[in-house]
Amino acid sequence: MNRVVLFLLAAAAVPGFAQQAPPIQSPEVHPDRSVTFRFRAPNAKEVLFAREGAERIPMKDDQGVWSVTTAPLEPDFYGYSFVADGVHLIDPSNSLMKPNLLNAESEVHVPGPASLPWEINDVPHGAVHHHFYRSGIVGDDRDFYVYTPPGYDPAAKKLYPVLYLLHGYSDDASGWTAVGRANVILDNLIAQGKAKPMLIVMTLGYGAPEILSPASQRFRDPELRTRNMSKFRDALFTEVMPQVEKSYRVAKDRNLRAIAGLSMGGAESLFTGLNAIDRFAWIGAFSSGGMGEDFNATFPALDAKANAQLRLLWIACGTDDRLIEPNRKFRDWLKSKSVQFIPIETPGSHTWMVWRRNLAEFAALLFQGKN
Amino acid sequence: MNRVVLFLLAAAAVPGFAQQAPPIQSPEVHPDRSVTFRFRAPNAKEVLFAREGAERIPMKDDQGVWSVTTAPLEPDFYGYSFVADGVHLIDPSNSLMKPNLLNAESEVHVPGPASLPWEINDVPHGAVHHHFYRSGIVGDDRDFYVYTPPGYDPAAKKLYPVLYLLHGYSDDASGWTAVGRANVILDNLIAQGKAKPMLIVMTLGYGAPEILSPASQRFRDPELRTRNMSKFRDALFTEVMPQVEKSYRVAKDRNLRAIAGLSMGGAESLFTGLNAIDRFAWIGAFSSGGMGEDFNATFPALDAKANAQLRLLWIACGTDDRLIEPNRKFRDWLKSKSVQFIPIETPGSHTWMVWRRNLAEFAALLFQGKN
Repeated sequence: MNRVVLFLLAAAAVPGFAQQAPPIQSPEVHPDRSVTFRFRAPNAKEVLFAREGAERIPMKDDQGVWSVTTAPLEPDFYGYSFVADGVHLIDPSNSLMKPNLLNAESEVHVPGPASLPWEINDVPHGAVHHHFYRSGIVGDDRDFYVYTPPGYDPAAKKLYPVLYLLHGYSDDASGWTAVGRANVILDNLIAQGKAKPMLIVMTLGYGAPEILSPASQRFRDPELRTRNMSKFRDALFTEVMPQVEKSYRVAKDRNLRAIAGLSMGGAESLFTGLNAIDRFAWIGAFSSGGMGEDFNATFPALDAKANAQLRLLWIACGTDDRLIEPNRKFRDWLKSKSVQFIPIETPGSHTWMVWRRNLAEFAALLFQGKN
Repeated sequence: MNRVVLFLLAAAAVPGFAQQAPPIQSPEVHPDRSVTFRFRAPNAKEVLFAREGAERIPMKDDQGVWSVTTAPLEPDFYGYSFVADGVHLIDPSNSLMKPNLLNAESEVHVPGPASLPWEINDVPHGAVHHHFYRSGIVGDDRDFYVYTPPGYDPAAKKLYPVLYLLHGYSDDASGWTAVGRANVILDNLIAQGKAKPMLIVMTLGYGAPEILSPASQRFRDPELRTRNMSKFRDALFTEVMPQVEKSYRVAKDRNLRAIAGLSMGGAESLFTGLNAIDRFAWIGAFSSGGMGEDFNATFPALDAKANAQLRLLWIACGTDDRLIEPNRKFRDWLKSKSVQFIPIETPGSHTWMVWRRNLAEFAALLFQGKN
């Protein structure tokens, strides 16, 4: 509820009021999938258009309204912002946003065929449950989300498999649903018979939340990064997993438990999962980063004996991601330890366009075969 | 995940990189509860500070950084935006936002004592469940949220009372939790023994979503406003309530069913509830608006016979709200029909600061006495 609305409601109640200036339309998705973005900034000297995964491009000024039309885009969701005289701004004409703790952005949907895993289809939908608790480990009030698949029965005798799915640095716990469309992707995969019905637990990934502020200094501190990961793991094991296992019909069997994440969450899933193979048989890392390079110290007990226990170790990164080299180094180290894994290199950089595809591919592999 | 983060992750992986300029701090809440807001706009000619429920005030320019410091504010959450050369912009330094389908804003929390109903306390917390479905009535994919109280047991023999709680024009279905803090308010009231444990269902309130676009024309159209309300009611009765009653342990007894809402949702709760007293014994309207003034046509069957059935009809509005007069007119009409109600006039205008207090007061009255 806001100024426009109050005006309109009052206007609806009291007849006779002035017209408002017509709003700007932005974004405008054209039939050829090119997109026009518009932004009013009558006194700006320069406005750039910054899209997730693309170089910034200048917008053109026409009497104070800046605009740019992209080339046709592949169907997807894209984050973007306007950089007006050096300041990143959300598109004020667009209500679709990417929540983020450091730099929220706007988002545009370029619709595609129903076969794309993130398109909402007329299939049975699961639900997303938001839970709140006070963390004794971290000392704050925090939250986690749980996706339950279509038809989930809280009184079922059967125990469901569960994926712990971790967000990246700067995301909040809603990242994988609000931006990653994890619930939509799983609804579609399950409807197509491509994924097993499973629960997905998406919890806040900061064991040391001070790592967020001030961002420009903290994430460079290796001690803080390590503490952030280990406290995250402690909260997961002693606070989140017990709540989930008490409230939902989820298996405690390692064969029915997976952990995966993107970027910082990829590092956390490797750190957490590969140091607790007794808990997780399925591990995935999407564009993981921030783990450091002293792998012997990070995974002191990991060796070829893990191969008999790991059902899947899936390590993906986009080839245009600046983290591709650290990921290749980690894979080389795994090879040196004779630990088996699936290496995935895809097109793309450090973007949600990559991670939505990663999730769709990874989730279809989980809990398959005899458990 | 964004440009700063990619930079940091790459920096964490590859040592030796340049410093970033220090970010602006905004908002900054001072110990005396005054707040400083800052916004970088080096070439703007004028930047105004627009806060929920207050007059716009000019910000001062200091080398391209505009700022303003408010007087001490009452503890609360306040929406705000910066108006740069006439364009409403979100605060790019603040990740706390008010989702809204027409004009998203930033939000600042001025913390207060634990006794304020919207402050998160160390009490048992309920959960918020997000459901998705395809509406045959409206013809779109839509959603609703369900709050379950602390200790809610899906296998309980006892049926819980349920409040259907409706958002305002321009809000989405998340409004009452994301902005209204309905879940926090109920957690606190229940912990204090002031409210009965209840479920709250918060569904998308548009029966005719085209009413949102273009906003400046559509909400003035009485036929469209009426269709929006009646299709909303149809979707509530035939789609949402059956799903809720199938999935949750909620009573179908009218004595354990309430409906309330704010602004457009207040009008919808009156229209829906007062025309279906056989379904709802408890009805609330907070700053209701957009109902029109032909009350005889809107409520053709309503008369003093309702008094024997209504457990509560609670009609609130802020005295600085431009909708106070239409609300008084409606109350006068109810009097003329000898329909009993509780009139509430509070300080405040058309803001969430009013509605959070309305909810806390209203929820404490619900389902009390013998049911």
